[in-house]
Amino acid sequence: MKSKYSNSEFSKRHIGSNQNQVKAMLKEIGYDSMDEFIAETIPNQIRFKGNLNVGDSVDEYELIHSLKMIASKNKPFKSYIGTGYYNTITPNVILRNIFENPGWYTAYTPYQAEISQGRLEALLNFQTMVMDMTGMEIANASLLDEATAAGEAMVMMSRENPNRNIFYADQNCHPQTIELLRTRSEPVGINLVVCKIEDFDFNDDVIGALIQYPSSDGKIFSFDDICQNAHSKKSLIAVATDLLALALIPSPGEIGADIAIGSSQRFGVPVGFGGPHAAFISAKERFKRKMPGRMIGVSVDSKGNRALRMALQTREQHIRRAKATSNICTAQVLLSVMASMYAVYHGRDGIISIANNIHEKTSLLASSLAKSGFKIVHNQFFDTIRIELEKSQSELIKEEALKNHINLRYFENHDIGISLDETVNDNDLIEILSTFNAKITDSVNYSIEVKRISDFMRHPVFNSYQSETEMMRYIHKLETKDLALNTSMISLGSCTMKLNAATQMIPVSWNEFSNPHPFAPLDQNKGYLKLFDDLSNWLKNITGLEGCSLQPNSGAQGEYTGLLTIRAYHIDKKNTEKNICLIPESAHGTNPASAVMAGMNVVPIKCDSMGNIDIEDLKDKIHSHKDQISCMMVTYPSTHGVFEESINEICDLIHNAGGLVYLDGANMNAIVGLSKVGDLGVDVCHINLHKTFAIPHGGGGPGMGPICVKEHLIPFLPGHPITGHTEKSITAVSAAPFGSASILPISWSYIALLGNKGLKESTEIAILNANYMAKRIEKHFPVLYRGLSGNSAHEFIIDLRNLKSETGISDEDVAKRLIDYGFHAPTMSWPVPGTLMIEPTESESKEEMDRFCDAMIAIRKEIDEVVEGKININDNPLSNAPHTAIEVMSDNWEHSYSREKAAYPADWLKDYKYWPTVSRVDNAHGDRNLICSCPPIETYSKQ
Amino acid sequence: MKSKYSNSEFSKRHIGSNQNQVKAMLKEIGYDSMDEFIAETIPNQIRFKGNLNVGDSVDEYELIHSLKMIASKNKPFKSYIGTGYYNTITPNVILRNIFENPGWYTAYTPYQAEISQGRLEALLNFQTMVMDMTGMEIANASLLDEATAAGEAMVMMSRENPNRNIFYADQNCHPQTIELLRTRSEPVGINLVVCKIEDFDFNDDVIGALIQYPSSDGKIFSFDDICQNAHSKKSLIAVATDLLALALIPSPGEIGADIAIGSSQRFGVPVGFGGPHAAFISAKERFKRKMPGRMIGVSVDSKGNRALRMALQTREQHIRRAKATSNICTAQVLLSVMASMYAVYHGRDGIISIANNIHEKTSLLASSLAKSGFKIVHNQFFDTIRIELEKSQSELIKEEALKNHINLRYFENHDIGISLDETVNDNDLIEILSTFNAKITDSVNYSIEVKRISDFMRHPVFNSYQSETEMMRYIHKLETKDLALNTSMISLGSCTMKLNAATQMIPVSWNEFSNPHPFAPLDQNKGYLKLFDDLSNWLKNITGLEGCSLQPNSGAQGEYTGLLTIRAYHIDKKNTEKNICLIPESAHGTNPASAVMAGMNVVPIKCDSMGNIDIEDLKDKIHSHKDQISCMMVTYPSTHGVFEESINEICDLIHNAGGLVYLDGANMNAIVGLSKVGDLGVDVCHINLHKTFAIPHGGGGPGMGPICVKEHLIPFLPGHPITGHTEKSITAVSAAPFGSASILPISWSYIALLGNKGLKESTEIAILNANYMAKRIEKHFPVLYRGLSGNSAHEFIIDLRNLKSETGISDEDVAKRLIDYGFHAPTMSWPVPGTLMIEPTESESKEEMDRFCDAMIAIRKEIDEVVEGKININDNPLSNAPHTAIEVMSDNWEHSYSREKAAYPADWLKDYKYWPTVSRVDNAHGDRNLICSCPPIETYSKQ
Repeated sequence: MKSKYSNSEFSKRHIGSNQNQVKAMLKEIGYDSMDEFIAETIPNQIRFKGNLNVGDSVDEYELIHSLKMIASKNKPFKSYIGTGYYNTITPNVILRNIFENPGWYTAYTPYQAEISQGRLEALLNFQTMVMDMTGMEIANASLLDEATAAGEAMVMMSRENPNRNIFYADQNCHPQTIELLRTRSEPVGINLVVCKIEDFDFNDDVIGALIQYPSSDGKIFSFDDICQNAHSKKSLIAVATDLLALALIPSPGEIGADIAIGSSQRFGVPVGFGGPHAAFISAKERFKRKMPGRMIGVSVDSKGNRALRMALQTREQHIRRAKATSNICTAQVLLSVMASMYAVYHGRDGIISIANNIHEKTSLLASSLAKSGFKIVHNQFFDTIRIELEKSQSELIKEEALKNHINLRYFENHDIGISLDETVNDNDLIEILSTFNAKITDSVNYSIEVKRISDFMRHPVFNSYQSETEMMRYIHKLETKDLALNTSMISLGSCTMKLNAATQMIPVSWNEFSNPHPFAPLDQNKGYLKLFDDLSNWLKNITGLEGCSLQPNSGAQGEYTGLLTIRAYHIDKKNTEKNICLIPESAHGTNPASAVMAGMNVVPIKCDSMGNIDIEDLKDKIHSHKDQISCMMVTYPSTHGVFEESINEICDLIHNAGGLVYLDGANMNAIVGLSKVGDLGVDVCHINLHKTFAIPHGGGGPGMGPICVKEHLIPFLPGHPITGHTEKSITAVSAAPFGSASILPISWSYIALLGNKGLKESTEIAILNANYMAKRIEKHFPVLYRGLSGNSAHEFIIDLRNLKSETGISDEDVAKRLIDYGFHAPTMSWPVPGTLMIEPTESESKEEMDRFCDAMIAIRKEIDEVVEGKININDNPLSNAPHTAIEVMSDNWEHSYSREKAAYPADWLKDYKYWPTVSRVDNAHGDRNLICSCPPIETYSKQ
Repeated sequence: MKSKYSNSEFSKRHIGSNQNQVKAMLKEIGYDSMDEFIAETIPNQIRFKGNLNVGDSVDEYELIHSLKMIASKNKPFKSYIGTGYYNTITPNVILRNIFENPGWYTAYTPYQAEISQGRLEALLNFQTMVMDMTGMEIANASLLDEATAAGEAMVMMSRENPNRNIFYADQNCHPQTIELLRTRSEPVGINLVVCKIEDFDFNDDVIGALIQYPSSDGKIFSFDDICQNAHSKKSLIAVATDLLALALIPSPGEIGADIAIGSSQRFGVPVGFGGPHAAFISAKERFKRKMPGRMIGVSVDSKGNRALRMALQTREQHIRRAKATSNICTAQVLLSVMASMYAVYHGRDGIISIANNIHEKTSLLASSLAKSGFKIVHNQFFDTIRIELEKSQSELIKEEALKNHINLRYFENHDIGISLDETVNDNDLIEILSTFNAKITDSVNYSIEVKRISDFMRHPVFNSYQSETEMMRYIHKLETKDLALNTSMISLGSCTMKLNAATQMIPVSWNEFSNPHPFAPLDQNKGYLKLFDDLSNWLKNITGLEGCSLQPNSGAQGEYTGLLTIRAYHIDKKNTEKNICLIPESAHGTNPASAVMAGMNVVPIKCDSMGNIDIEDLKDKIHSHKDQISCMMVTYPSTHGVFEESINEICDLIHNAGGLVYLDGANMNAIVGLSKVGDLGVDVCHINLHKTFAIPHGGGGPGMGPICVKEHLIPFLPGHPITGHTEKSITAVSAAPFGSASILPISWSYIALLGNKGLKESTEIAILNANYMAKRIEKHFPVLYRGLSGNSAHEFIIDLRNLKSETGISDEDVAKRLIDYGFHAPTMSWPVPGTLMIEPTESESKEEMDRFCDAMIAIRKEIDEVVEGKININDNPLSNAPHTAIEVMSDNWEHSYSREKAAYPADWLKDYKYWPTVSRVDNAHGDRNLICSCPPIETYSKQ
């Protein structure tokens, strides 16, 4: 509860414009009041006229205090559970300068390569580190978690072996990994066989296999024979592995594996009760066009200088749509940047030293336990040992461990596992041993027999920044290359780049949230549980739905989960024939991809000339697929930024056909507090917490995509192998039971700070801002879709489709020219090719939006000058944009326009100018010559 | 204790170069080993050959944990003590983006205006805010604390009325303020009279008076009659005031005061057990050449564009030396930046709302207590009430308050004071009242009778950044204008710009350190006491001295305190004639200023051609002032960066003359672990924790200047009115008993992290680095002073005195040209005019130093080209430096050299270029036309 003496209304800080500016904007678009504007803009039949019930707003000061109280309910147990999650030390120079720095965490996905060279370099370092450690030839720049990475690997292998359907998984993989394979395999008809490695039987039906190395319970072993065996039958081998262990043992690539996956969490990213962390996938060269997710590659810019960008973007699922085998969209950029910086800071020698150190501790522990009479199951290990125990003995030790505030891993057969990490010190060892009533010995009897010989991380980037000063400057240098929200607005349509308030971010660094292990007993983390409970209830209230799962850790993952619950619902009702998913053509590419992954057949629905779903086509499709309709996926407001009037009718049509309605929550920013999707007839929706609920984009992740469902779907919400399943629950969709738990305090804080009133007000302002900008810009560029009222929702599309043919200037030229004006381009060519989609969000001030509009208007004038022949069509500031400082101040300026026109086309730039560091990037060149690791130092041109 | 399993040796992070680089540098300067180098560089007679005893190094991870344990011993009491310190809410956008951002906290004092426009703007905002609130015409950019600001005001007034010697202080000033006046007045012969305001008797002997308004116990009153009365006798009135109260009540300037002082702490700067915070001083226009400290002023650059810089710098004490009446050097820049940003973020309306809110709470509290029968002493108040009580009643309430974890103010007459603040909520009020066994009433019977009518903070800067997004961008924009340690090395001779490690900085944000009130019972803050104890012991061990006081909150304050203890020592021995302080000509200007403030007569000692103290001159001076020698002040190594061989002899000479030796610890970075000043014969020294012990410079403060003393001086170390005095202790020198307590964890952490070995190694490397750079640069610029070994200490001077006459290029041209190469200039013209003094510190890597040397060498070549006539002497890149982006890319480039030569003279700039935002600043223009507040918006040129 906010004190009546609070001076601070968070909504005034969150919303960019003040009351006077709001009035001015309303006036500009022809309204006297917000109520009138909203009433006309949002169709009456979808309006929620009541008040939300998420509580009144609290102020920032009170929030920090009450969240601290909640946090204190997470008990500070020390966990040696391992199983994919390890305590780690985040170097404070990385914590402070990246994790807690808006220059890094508010950046958007690096689609605009010219203003993203800093984090692209960090991601290239990540890929290089992963390739080096795993002994592979290509790597991507992160997946969501180790278990889903295993799923991706399986599907990749299945694309390579399309006519086979058996997939083996080593039974000594992490349990959550095995469960994810189960989740991913069954709907798409892959027959998953979990067994001992020795029982893998490769033949012409076998796609491949997944091995965990070191195994989940710690064993180190070789598997070159298995690889040979598999390859002889054209089966493939993927290996789930541990980057730190690979500093000491031969890499999967050397041994013969085709693909490696795993988590980079223990490279300095806090455990955080399960996430977010960056998973990795690396592979042999020949898989390069089948790699899921985002790969960073080296290319050149228009001046021939080295420039980085996301490679092979044409593979993205919004192109492949229903042919996609992966719906991966969000990556874990911020966390892979951190992991890469951990590698950069420790360097090759530091990583080896950390690994050796952990191994020595583990050997000492094993020797000490052995000397005290305990049986150590595997004598070849890195950081994890398994101790064979009788039931009674095991229970006594467990009891003792709890008393000592220690968590161990308890196997079903009563064995106990212990995983050590870089935080473990002498006292910790003594404490663990005392739990076993054992003492430290002098003689160490374990060592790794087959050690790694091949070298890694020899690139200078891993051997130049070992002092904190150099590291701080390297991080800062990269930061200055990028444009983030602390510089100017990022009006990314569909991506909702709103304020990520410092008050929301600060708690994420607290130990109470960053330390807990996701598989620790739940009753140790009542603070987290309270927070999950609140957040679930609030999301249910906001959506008007009755159930919630916080497990999906990205929007696309949320889609997939929602569709799986629908599938389970129909199967439970014995309606196994219901497997058609209707998806409007305007939908985000992840929708069809998710549907395919959920084993559904996608039937596209046309849109009319207004951008709305074509009701007649929908009726036709329902009719022709009558008993097979599983569901329809809709986005509301539509991906065109329009409040469709027919949403209720659509829901009715689907329900009458026995199907359910899935709502893609990407645009929820436009309806929170104004409309409840449950009231519209929606059965399930996902919510992008990293869009609507203020989790920062982190330069391209983390995201979070919880789903809310109607009561009839609650039984099917996902379970988890560790926290358990209910009778009908689907299997896990994320490695951790609560997805990326440690960033949930951000959304919790966002909702608590705004409260019922502030949430609604934010939505209203978001819609107002979009319409205000549309009004200013429409005189210069046509606005493509509008609702019946003539208004847009929270975003709008400007139509540049004829620009190129009419003027010679392309939509890309406009986007890149915006950089010269100091702005990030809006969403390009999505959902409609040749357009720009603009979403200002509620957090931008009228002043900032005016500046952006002024830039667009000035660009229009520049285009007109080209058309009028005042500027050379073959040499103009638009086609040549963006302009770097080096270019503009070159002595050899030979353009037909002036330097000032190039770099200072607007007044405000003289007060503050952001400089891109490369010229326009040549994507095609990079895709033809794929390089996705740091280029050898000798090739660095002294630019 | 560091675990034997620690992977991390902090010294490897702190020291810039690795072992290979160290070897290479040793080789370059002709040594095979560090031991050999140090043995030759440091005179044998000063070497400490043992090991320090500050403990072995701990690693960063362990450090954070053990410091957290210590912090947890500070109990979270809520304090309503007031008396100059109030709970406040630091807006998290300011906390995260300024207080926790190396871009702000690692910046140096803005002597190089061209690369400091960001913080200069923030400081100008601070001055404007102070002038507006206090109703004055000029203000400076911060003093150390409110009490010392009162001392400065008194001395200013005394300079204005030089032939008078009585100074009145209202007895209802804060006790620490009165004590500071006592400290400052007595040595310089001012007769301080503390009495009721009504008893002020102005006449021709009266310098002036200090009034506290509102009074220390909360009373609001008018004093226009007192001002008139004083002015009629040419006496002056200074007012200690509260910025927040002034939002509601008439300002001192309007009422008729000449000077206003106070603290800006409650504008968002945590109490921090006493500091650091920014004090302010403002005055009527006619005092502008008498203002102590640093004033920011508006001027123009060489292109005629608006540019900010420190105004009237010629008044600095290193010019006035023994004529200075103030030794103020360090300001509280980081804290004044925060306070100004608090004003910017809340804006005029927000500040009024906060003030009203606090006043309403206080009125309600007073009404409630009155209704319950308590007598409220003053019925006109802002935030503080005084309750009249019997002894027994008072004691009961105190007991109850302690039980409720509440601290109130307990007056000697058993009255109780309560000061409210913006953090107080409904529950807090109820809790306070329950301590008095009282209940909240409905009717409020108190209000301010005479309200402020005049307006304030109408400048747009205070009314444009009320959303967090806008605020974040404003902070970021200013940050990008400045060059700080996260960009490149700042080789400031004498200022030791070493690494400020993130691990050292993080604890400063912890509530346990930022919340405690300095006048809370000490036993509530045992964590702080433990930390003070450790730090004092470590500093004593490092200096080889036996006593320590942490009270002085700047280096100059340390000098002053040390000299006061020497003075007290002589007086105690009845040697009142001993009042001469010998100071070498090469000393920092604060030395003579401090001596004069301590009531001493300064006798300068010559230096010889090597820069060393002239022993013969010293002997002469000792002889001619025989029985009057109080002490000598020496700097070691000397301000010329030389280890003088004669230091022991000098100490002997002074001691034989019955004097004591004061050591200025500015250069302690060169001797920690290698020499103990106590062993040399030093009796007292101060230590710049913000130089040697890693407290960041904060853009020009905070600093900390504790002193260490030999046993015979321990009895005279400063006491404090709240924590008490011993029999012989001198009166307080800072407002708070432990100075700027909340930044002491930084130095504590620094010492703990490095330990015995790391501290010594850091010193060795610091000396090596200086000698390596000198070796590289000496081939191009002469190095001025060297020790007998031919080596420098930790810094060195390059001699440009003949440059101007020989080449037409000035030392300033070289300094400004370095900006074009991406570097901050070294110390200019100090200690020798026309030179540059370079101190790399141990934290810079060989690579960075090489880059700097390369820049200097390239500049030398440019100078040669001027000499050779290849570049025009009247139009060359040196005289025109620095070059802004706007200038270089102007279409009207008319210089005789190319744009690339101007802006990209070195390869590395193409990878990363820092751009100054103004051209060379015209200091004289600004001093002729002093403007020290934000210029009216209509005068802003659209640059």
